[in-house]
Amino acid sequence: MDYFRNIGLIGRLGSKNVVDTLKSLIRFLNDQGLNAVLDERIAEMMPGHGQQVCKQKMMGEICDLVIVVGGDGSLLGAARSLAQFHIPVLGVNRGNLGFLTDIAPDEIEQKVAEVLDGKYTVESRFLIDVTVKRNGEPIGEMVALNDCVLHPGKAARMIEFELYIEGQFVYTQRSDGLIVSTPTGSTAYALSGGGPIMHPKLDALVLVPMFPHTLSSRPIVVDGNSELKLVISERNETYPAISCDGQNDISCAPGDTITIHKKPHKLKLLHPLNYDFYQTCREKLGWGTKLGD
Amino acid sequence: MDYFRNIGLIGRLGSKNVVDTLKSLIRFLNDQGLNAVLDERIAEMMPGHGQQVCKQKMMGEICDLVIVVGGDGSLLGAARSLAQFHIPVLGVNRGNLGFLTDIAPDEIEQKVAEVLDGKYTVESRFLIDVTVKRNGEPIGEMVALNDCVLHPGKAARMIEFELYIEGQFVYTQRSDGLIVSTPTGSTAYALSGGGPIMHPKLDALVLVPMFPHTLSSRPIVVDGNSELKLVISERNETYPAISCDGQNDISCAPGDTITIHKKPHKLKLLHPLNYDFYQTCREKLGWGTKLGD
Amino acid sequence: MDYFRNIGLIGRLGSKNVVDTLKSLIRFLNDQGLNAVLDERIAEMMPGHGQQVCKQKMMGEICDLVIVVGGDGSLLGAARSLAQFHIPVLGVNRGNLGFLTDIAPDEIEQKVAEVLDGKYTVESRFLIDVTVKRNGEPIGEMVALNDCVLHPGKAARMIEFELYIEGQFVYTQRSDGLIVSTPTGSTAYALSGGGPIMHPKLDALVLVPMFPHTLSSRPIVVDGNSELKLVISERNETYPAISCDGQNDISCAPGDTITIHKKPHKLKLLHPLNYDFYQTCREKLGWGTKLGD
Amino acid sequence: MDYFRNIGLIGRLGSKNVVDTLKSLIRFLNDQGLNAVLDERIAEMMPGHGQQVCKQKMMGEICDLVIVVGGDGSLLGAARSLAQFHIPVLGVNRGNLGFLTDIAPDEIEQKVAEVLDGKYTVESRFLIDVTVKRNGEPIGEMVALNDCVLHPGKAARMIEFELYIEGQFVYTQRSDGLIVSTPTGSTAYALSGGGPIMHPKLDALVLVPMFPHTLSSRPIVVDGNSELKLVISERNETYPAISCDGQNDISCAPGDTITIHKKPHKLKLLHPLNYDFYQTCREKLGWGTKLGD
Repeated sequence: MDYFRNIGLIGRLGSKNVVDTLKSLIRFLNDQGLNAVLDERIAEMMPGHGQQVCKQKMMGEICDLVIVVGGDGSLLGAARSLAQFHIPVLGVNRGNLGFLTDIAPDEIEQKVAEVLDGKYTVESRFLIDVTVKRNGEPIGEMVALNDCVLHPGKAARMIEFELYIEGQFVYTQRSDGLIVSTPTGSTAYALSGGGPIMHPKLDALVLVPMFPHTLSSRPIVVDGNSELKLVISERNETYPAISCDGQNDISCAPGDTITIHKKPHKLKLLHPLNYDFYQTCREKLGWGTKLGD
Repeated sequence: MDYFRNIGLIGRLGSKNVVDTLKSLIRFLNDQGLNAVLDERIAEMMPGHGQQVCKQKMMGEICDLVIVVGGDGSLLGAARSLAQFHIPVLGVNRGNLGFLTDIAPDEIEQKVAEVLDGKYTVESRFLIDVTVKRNGEPIGEMVALNDCVLHPGKAARMIEFELYIEGQFVYTQRSDGLIVSTPTGSTAYALSGGGPIMHPKLDALVLVPMFPHTLSSRPIVVDGNSELKLVISERNETYPAISCDGQNDISCAPGDTITIHKKPHKLKLLHPLNYDFYQTCREKLGWGTKLGD
Repeated sequence: MDYFRNIGLIGRLGSKNVVDTLKSLIRFLNDQGLNAVLDERIAEMMPGHGQQVCKQKMMGEICDLVIVVGGDGSLLGAARSLAQFHIPVLGVNRGNLGFLTDIAPDEIEQKVAEVLDGKYTVESRFLIDVTVKRNGEPIGEMVALNDCVLHPGKAARMIEFELYIEGQFVYTQRSDGLIVSTPTGSTAYALSGGGPIMHPKLDALVLVPMFPHTLSSRPIVVDGNSELKLVISERNETYPAISCDGQNDISCAPGDTITIHKKPHKLKLLHPLNYDFYQTCREKLGWGTKLGD
Repeated sequence: MDYFRNIGLIGRLGSKNVVDTLKSLIRFLNDQGLNAVLDERIAEMMPGHGQQVCKQKMMGEICDLVIVVGGDGSLLGAARSLAQFHIPVLGVNRGNLGFLTDIAPDEIEQKVAEVLDGKYTVESRFLIDVTVKRNGEPIGEMVALNDCVLHPGKAARMIEFELYIEGQFVYTQRSDGLIVSTPTGSTAYALSGGGPIMHPKLDALVLVPMFPHTLSSRPIVVDGNSELKLVISERNETYPAISCDGQNDISCAPGDTITIHKKPHKLKLLHPLNYDFYQTCREKLGWGTKLGD
C-alpha cells in the first residue's frame, strides 16, 4: 500500500542550503516513483527542475503530504495555509533542530523513507483564529499556530487594554502587550516572556503579560476552548498592533476588540517514530547546562 | 424541597473568631430546623453546644453538606478527608478572603441561607494521589488538593532526581525540589515559585522547579491525566521529603520513586452565585496595584 | 538666611489639576515674598499669571530651586534639562505617589514651606549619557535619568547585538532588546522586565535583557562607572531604536554602536525630611498585599 | 625574584581525582624547589607523601600562597578560613569549570607555573559576617564568601521575619526565606532564586526573597557597606536556620535577630592572566544555547 503519492515541497526562501536539500529530496522522491510538487516561490530558485508547481495553498488539494524544509518559521507559514485541508505536514530543519522541524539534514533520506513507508506518528496541533473588530465590524482576521501578540506597533511602548476570558472580566492591564500562545508556541516567544512550557497534547492557551506595570500579573493558563477578548482602551493614545506567529500584523485603534479562539481544523504534524518532545526540550533549551558543581 | 438537612461544621482550631462564627452558624442552622454536626476536635472548644459530634471523615457519610470555617488551609484538610464521599463543601473565611473560602464573615448568614436555598454553583476540583515506593514496595501514600512538593527535608538543600512524565524521561534535575500543583494549588505555593495561574476548570498539572541549577528549567504544564514519576537519585546524599498541601510529609531515601496521578474522586466545592475566580485573583493578588503613573 | 529666592515652576502639560496646583503654589510663594518663575509652556495655560517666564533650560541659570508638579515622567524631563546646572529639584505629585515626586497634593503647602525653611534632605541621582555612532561618527546623543532602552523600533521584534562592558565582550544576544537602568530607573521599566530594585544610593547600572532567546540570560549589575557598548549586528535586518526615559528616540542601523556612561553632573533631588525610600516601595509596589493566609 | 616559596595545598575530600592532581602538583612544586604544605585532612589520604602538614587555618601564617583543588565549594571553605590572613588563594577545578576554581586540570602545570612566575591578576572578594543574637546576646557568628541564607530549617516551610537595611524598616515578609549574597555568590544560589548577576568588582549585596507570599517582592541590591538586620517574628511558630555558603548552620528562634555586614578582610583571589569573568559566565550559564531559529 502506498501511503503518499504526491508530495508537496516547501522551502525557506533565500537559502542555498535549503535549495540543495530540496534538490536531493526531489531526486529521492522521483527515484521512489513519487511526484514532487513544488511551491511556486521556491521553484523559481530551481530553474530546470522539471517538477509540477503550484501555490502553497493549492497543495492542500493536490498533495497527500507536504514536506517543509527550513526552520520552525517556515513550517508556521505552511501550517497556517494548509491547516484547513487535513493534509499531513513533515518538517526538515536546515541548521538547528527545531521544535516543529525535527528531521536533521543528515538523516533526511532515511527518515523520509521511513515516513513514506508508514513509520511515523501523527500529532494534532491546534491553531487559533484572531479577529479584530472596529465598531463591531471585522476589519481583519488572522490565523496562528504559535501565538498572537498584542504589541505596541510603531509607537511608544505602553498599551492599556482589558482582558475578558469566556466573557468574564479579568483585568485592565497596562503593559508592553500580551502574548496568547498555544502549546505549540509555548516553547517559542511565550517562553522568553516567562510563560510555562505546555506539552503539545495539552488543550490549553497561555496568556503571558509583557512587562506589566502590575508586578503580580502572571501567566494564566486556560482551557483551549476558551474565547478570549482584548479591548484596546479608549484612552490609549497609541495604535498598537496584533501579530500572528511574528509574521503578520494588523494595526489596531483605541476601542478595537480582538477576539481569539481555537480553529476547528488542526494541523496534522508528522514525526519520525523516535520523536520525543522532552528530548527536543533538553537539546533546544540546554537542560544539560548546569550552574553548580 | 430541602437541599441540605445535616450540615457538618469544621473549623480552624485555636481561633476564638472561628468559634464565634461557628456558634452563630449553629444558631442559624438550628433556627432553620437543620442539624449541625460538629467536627469532634472543634467541638471540644465549645462545651455545652448540644449538637451531634463526629470525626471529620465520618461527615462524608452522615452529612449532606460540610461548611468549613477558617482559611484555605482548613478547607484543604477537609477536602482531603471528604473527597471520596462526593459531599459538597462550602468555605467561610475568617479574616482574609481565600481562594477556596470565599464567603466573608460579615455575609455568612445571607450567603449560607442562599446556598441552603439552592442558590449556588458547584465546581469540581480534582485531587492528586502521591505514592512513595522503596524497592518497588509502597511505603507511604498521601492525597493533595493543592500540591505535592519534593523538598530537602531536614538536611542540606540540594536534591538530585529524575522526572518522568507518562513514562518518558524529562530530565535529571538538581534543585531545591519540585512543586507539582493542581489548578487549585496554582494560586498558592506554586505561584510564589514562578508557576502560572491555571483556571480551576483546566484539566492540567503544573511542575514548578524550585531554584533549579539549570537556569533554563521552567514550569511545565501537562494534561491532568498524566502519570508523573520522580526518582530520587541513588547518589543523593540526603533524605528529601515529599509533602502534600504543606500539611503532611513522607521522608524519602535515595532510590525511592514517587508516583503522582489524579484521584478518581473530586471535591465538590460550592460557591455563592456571584462567585468569580478572576475577581478573587484581582483582590488576593493585588492586580489593582500598579507601578506606573 | 534665605535658602531659596527664585523658584522655577514646571508642570505636566494638559492637566487642569496641575494648573490648579501651580496657581496655589504661586500664591503661596508670592505670599512668602519669593519669586515664581514659570516654564513657558505651562505658563501659556495660565493667562494673566503675572509671573516671570522662561524656558525650562534657563531655569538652571536664574533659579535657586525648581519645583516640578506632575508625575515621575514630568520630573524625568526636567532632570535631563537641569542636571548640568546643579540646581535642586523638588517633585510634587498629582494623583499617585511617585518615586521621584513624593510630596502629595494635600500636603504641598506644609512640605514646601518646610523645604523653603531648610528642612529637607538632598539626594544625588546620577544620569547616563547615550551616544550612537555610525561608521565611528556620532549621529545622536541623549541623556537619561531612569534608563535607556534598545528596542525594535518600528519593525519586527528581534534584535541581534553584541554587548561589551569595560571593553570586555559579554555576549551576542538575540532578544527584543536591552534595558540599561540607573538605580533611579530600577523601580520603573527595568522592574517590569525582571530587574532588581537598586537602592538610590548605589553606584551601579543594571542591564536587563528583554525576552532573550537564551533563557539563561539574566539581569547583570555592574559598577556605575562602567563604560557600556552595544553593537547592532551587521546581519540585523531591522532598524532598532534606542530611547531614553521612554521619552526620546534615536533610530539605529546595523553596524551602529551605542556607548553608555555615567554623566559627570548629577541631579540634586530634594525630599522632605520624612522621606523613606522603602516606604515608597511598600506603597507603590503593594508589598502589603499577600498571597496566603 | 621568588614570588611564592611555601605553597599550601587544600583539596576536596573523598575524590581520587583530587588526590591524583595534588600528587602531581606536589611533584611539580618540589621540582621547582618549592615547599608544599598539606592540609592535614587531605594529607591522610596520601600516606608517605613526605611533605609538611598543618591545619587549614595555620596555612595563613606559614604559607605565601594556597592552592585549592576541587570545586567552588572547596574554595569557599578555604576562603572563610584564610581571609583574615591576606594570603592569596588560587583555585584548580576537578571536572567542571568553576567561577572561583578557574584553572582546568589539563592546564594546571602551565598555569600554576605562570602564577609562580608572577603572571597573574589579583581580585579582592569581600566576605560577610553573620551574627545571631538572642535577647541581645550573640549566640553564634559565621562568615560567608558567597551568601547567607535564612531558611526553614527542619520544620515546615514558611518564615515570617522583618528586614531592616541601615536601620530602616523595609518590610515584614512571609516566605521560604531570604538569600543575602555577595557579588561572588551572585552566580551561585542567588541566581537560581532569580537574583541578578553582579560583577565581582561591584561593592554591593543582593537580597533575594525565596518564594515570597507577596508577589511583588523582588531582589534588592544595596551598597556593600550596608548593615542588614533580620528579625524573626515573635509569632513565628517554627525554628528557622541561617546558613553560610550552604556549609554551616545556626538554628534560630522566634525573636532572634541576625545582623549581616561586610568583613574588614578580603579574600585575595588569584587568576591566570587570561581570566575573563564574562567568559566564565558564557561557559557556565550556557549563554550560547539559544531558543529560536
